[in-house]
Amino acid sequence: MSGAPIQFYFDFISPFAYLGWTQIHAIAERHQRSVEPVPVLFAALLNAHGHKGPAEIPPKRVFTWKTVVRLAHDLSVPVQPPPAHPFNPLLALRVASLPLEPSKQRALIDRLFRMTWTTGRGVDTIEKISEALSALGHDAEQTLEAANAPENKARLKTATDEALKRGVFGVPTAIVDDESFWGQDSFGHMERFMRGEDPVDPESIEVWAKLPVGIERKKS
Amino acid sequence: MSGAPIQFYFDFISPFAYLGWTQIHAIAERHQRSVEPVPVLFAALLNAHGHKGPAEIPPKRVFTWKTVVRLAHDLSVPVQPPPAHPFNPLLALRVASLPLEPSKQRALIDRLFRMTWTTGRGVDTIEKISEALSALGHDAEQTLEAANAPENKARLKTATDEALKRGVFGVPTAIVDDESFWGQDSFGHMERFMRGEDPVDPESIEVWAKLPVGIERKKS
Repeated sequence: MSGAPIQFYFDFISPFAYLGWTQIHAIAERHQRSVEPVPVLFAALLNAHGHKGPAEIPPKRVFTWKTVVRLAHDLSVPVQPPPAHPFNPLLALRVASLPLEPSKQRALIDRLFRMTWTTGRGVDTIEKISEALSALGHDAEQTLEAANAPENKARLKTATDEALKRGVFGVPTAIVDDESFWGQDSFGHMERFMRGEDPVDPESIEVWAKLPVGIERKKS
Repeated sequence: MSGAPIQFYFDFISPFAYLGWTQIHAIAERHQRSVEPVPVLFAALLNAHGHKGPAEIPPKRVFTWKTVVRLAHDLSVPVQPPPAHPFNPLLALRVASLPLEPSKQRALIDRLFRMTWTTGRGVDTIEKISEALSALGHDAEQTLEAANAPENKARLKTATDEALKRGVFGVPTAIVDDESFWGQDSFGHMERFMRGEDPVDPESIEVWAKLPVGIERKKS
């Protein structure tokens, strides 16, 4: 591996994070990078920014599902909805936050993502998560106990807080060499950035970054 | 023209609407369609959905500008920020809402979009809009009077209200044969839809559309 790792911020709740997950390892390999998966609680990002997720605006929710089906088709990856959405992803995220060996963590995240978005079963109960753990050869009871231990709960919370400090506002977000790429659809731009061919140059973007605000909406 | 027109909902405030505008006529021509531009007030869409625009979340604002520069590069179209953003787009939208002959309306919208996003000048004052009108051979004073007449103000408001009723939640949104495509980045999917090759089929999307909500965020 020649460069710094790509940090991949995700929450199982996001179908776009699932789509991004199906691509990120091949992208990293093409650029001699590793992937550092960072589970974060998307709802906490939305709360911090006073924002709404795509599933929280009814017409956007329907359009989002169609987009997910279209993008999965384009990427030739399977997709199927979980039994309910949004669902509580906390336990799955805590399990994914455990300090496992990288290959084991990757296999676990992969299984949880696929259970959520390709099997119709979801990861919203202790039983389903136990099943995933056992299938991968983990001691389910012991692992769930470790996932629910205060230090591990704090691990997920700290990761989410640090993501916010780094400017993460949605998932998936991939950060490489301190440059953030939000959304699976931005990963092509990330690849170009890693090739040193990003059309954004620091000087010209300064003009945009310093653009004065001309009007603000009244708080409604 | 063999099919129904593509309705293109836009607000000059959105750089993605500008990018979409640079593409929509060629897309329509490829599919023997016409374009029906529909000016709407983006701020009113956000208010109605209790949502925030990308410029209203500081880290998202910076990422949005970079995305705009990257997409403009990919589309080989010029882009430059207006003097301030967000800005008040009302007068420009009212001028664009006037019932002009299609080719004249298109030329006017085109000029206002380009003034906003390619010249650094913007369309946030009466003077700049007058200049655009004069350059296109309109009587600026008379046109501005018509733009500010109650019936024309109502025209923009009605268009925005009707857009909301049709499920428009952002700009640009293109609607063709009653199918909505939000965002310039979805226009490839729209082209596939017009070719009759959309991977979304009505039956399978029903399952997604009827997905129960498993959890709701507490109102913060």
